[in-house]
Amino acid sequence: MKNNFLDKVKDRLIISCQALADEPLHSSFIMSRMARAAYEAGASAIRANSVVDVQAIMDTVELPVIGLDKVDYSDAPIYITPTIKEMRGIAATGAAVVACDVTGRPRPHGEQLATIVETMRTEYPDTLLMADTSSLDDVKEANRLGFDIIGTTMYGYTPATEGCNIADNNFEYLKQVLAMSKTPVIAEGKIDSPEKAVTALKLGCHSVVVGSSITRPQLIAKTYIDAVNEL
Amino acid sequence: MKNNFLDKVKDRLIISCQALADEPLHSSFIMSRMARAAYEAGASAIRANSVVDVQAIMDTVELPVIGLDKVDYSDAPIYITPTIKEMRGIAATGAAVVACDVTGRPRPHGEQLATIVETMRTEYPDTLLMADTSSLDDVKEANRLGFDIIGTTMYGYTPATEGCNIADNNFEYLKQVLAMSKTPVIAEGKIDSPEKAVTALKLGCHSVVVGSSITRPQLIAKTYIDAVNEL
Repeated sequence: MKNNFLDKVKDRLIISCQALADEPLHSSFIMSRMARAAYEAGASAIRANSVVDVQAIMDTVELPVIGLDKVDYSDAPIYITPTIKEMRGIAATGAAVVACDVTGRPRPHGEQLATIVETMRTEYPDTLLMADTSSLDDVKEANRLGFDIIGTTMYGYTPATEGCNIADNNFEYLKQVLAMSKTPVIAEGKIDSPEKAVTALKLGCHSVVVGSSITRPQLIAKTYIDAVNEL
Repeated sequence: MKNNFLDKVKDRLIISCQALADEPLHSSFIMSRMARAAYEAGASAIRANSVVDVQAIMDTVELPVIGLDKVDYSDAPIYITPTIKEMRGIAATGAAVVACDVTGRPRPHGEQLATIVETMRTEYPDTLLMADTSSLDDVKEANRLGFDIIGTTMYGYTPATEGCNIADNNFEYLKQVLAMSKTPVIAEGKIDSPEKAVTALKLGCHSVVVGSSITRPQLIAKTYIDAVNEL
């Protein structure tokens, strides 16, 4: 079976449905319904965290899933599908794509990303791999290792890129990523308006992921509360 | 016990957490978690539909609730807490406020609104009553019947007001409601940006209810999908 994920999401919206353990909507049942909301609106795919959420979502909607598994380890700073264990766990759900941290930082247990990619290609040859990158160096490394998709996910979410926003300077960083990437780029991270989503696609991104501004009501509500509190 | 609802919501945001039977998030459990999201963001109160949702929400967050019960009857067009049966059901949950349709249209079984109000004042003297109105005539009637709160909820949602939006003409309709109402006005209906919420309060509304643009992800997602589809 050919993995036609990239065809399905071309020029379309992917919706991230995530609620971590400390969030009010934390629940695989709720995330499966959130995915149904995304499906009804016309999303092309879902991005989701953890084996149980990915499975619940795949049981609920007929949409391809980008799966990841956020796990904190004490011996390394990265947390998005950090080791081969989580990579295998997500791939075993049948998710079309597995996303993982590609930020050049150390992985738990001293694992090497090149080895992880090689193992995944052997064990799950039909599963696409998405690199959640934070910098142009990360994009180069993802190119070198043969990732199928470059995501801008971590831009603004590493110590080195703290405070950076993908929309800064008329999306200058995204333009550089697009120029450098050898494979489809999916814009992700701080895309919080329809206009920004459209801009990312117009610039040449293959697809765009929107999350919090659709599926994290506590953050959406906060924008209202903050405005009202300024009165 | 004095019902201090109006003190608690003064100049603050109320978040409506509703998902009807045909919506992807339909579930009292999900609505209770949605209310928790609203609480964490700093909402002053929750507006919710149905006895089970109101109860689940009151069990989850320490916020006052405006309760209502949407029920369709074949012999009348109104559906927001249309008869004394639903009024009693919601009041019995202990909700601070019960909201009902005040649009001048016939009620099921030929029930009269004046009788409903009188019955509620006798049976639930501490429960505030909110009038979900659609026109200045409705506001007059709510004044006459002694409702505690005037809501603009139904403006744009009756045949006579179809297509109307509370923000039209610089909130002209809302200004007229405020001038006519003898009791606190809560703006509700199509308030879909922090700026509109702030404007409603600045104009003199006691509080403002925001719903879909925070708690209906399928509608929020649709704004993104529509923008992307225009590409």
